[in-house]
Amino acid sequence: MYNNSKVIEANFEDAQSKVTEALSAQGFGVLTEIDVQATLKKKLDVDFRKYKILGACNPPFAYKALSMEENIGVLMPCNVVIQEIEAGKVRVSAVNPLEAMKAAGNENLASIAGEVSEKLLKALESL
Amino acid sequence: MYNNSKVIEANFEDAQSKVTEALSAQGFGVLTEIDVQATLKKKLDVDFRKYKILGACNPPFAYKALSMEENIGVLMPCNVVIQEIEAGKVRVSAVNPLEAMKAAGNENLASIAGEVSEKLLKALESL
Repeated sequence: MYNNSKVIEANFEDAQSKVTEALSAQGFGVLTEIDVQATLKKKLDVDFRKYKILGACNPPFAYKALSMEENIGVLMPCNVVIQEIEAGKVRVSAVNPLEAMKAAGNENLASIAGEVSEKLLKALESL
Repeated sequence: MYNNSKVIEANFEDAQSKVTEALSAQGFGVLTEIDVQATLKKKLDVDFRKYKILGACNPPFAYKALSMEENIGVLMPCNVVIQEIEAGKVRVSAVNPLEAMKAAGNENLASIAGEVSEKLLKALESL
């Protein structure tokens, strides 16, 4: 599966804080943040639920992967989506980099992607 | 292949401007920018070549994809990497979203991903 997902009971803002902390505990910093709701409102004038894409990066693993495969940055950072499914319930979904990086066909890289996948899963489970 | 790539003759900063313009001509705005060289220096104190990850988004297509598959944001935005391979030569690599989104196993989504892939390829070819 291209992502792993979990529903937590929290308001949207608290969910974002919890996710950021859980990622940090596994060595991931959040490098980018896209507010999809705000972007779709601004660009298309449509109403969308609360939805953010956080770009998480574990620098030692990123460095190893980049040293093995020069273009692998197109699959970085590891995205974690938070979206409000109803008041007080938020779905958190983390990309499965192992699935995405299979396409690169590099076995050493797949091993690193597997380790990163496990760390993301641990962060998700800790919520 | 998980990405399409092209080497252009330009300095790094000019290459970034050209890529941004070429993406814009195909309807993509750049929503995120990660300076990998600066990030690796700061976090790991290692020296890396000039390398940036630009997160490109075509809002109408993103909206369609999100309406079909709630977690697909983990595969957004479409990343374009620019990296200096030697003075005056820059490699530009665009993710192939069709390849990445195959993993979602959603045929309607694959059709959109195919259209987005073509637009990214056109942007790359126009450089």
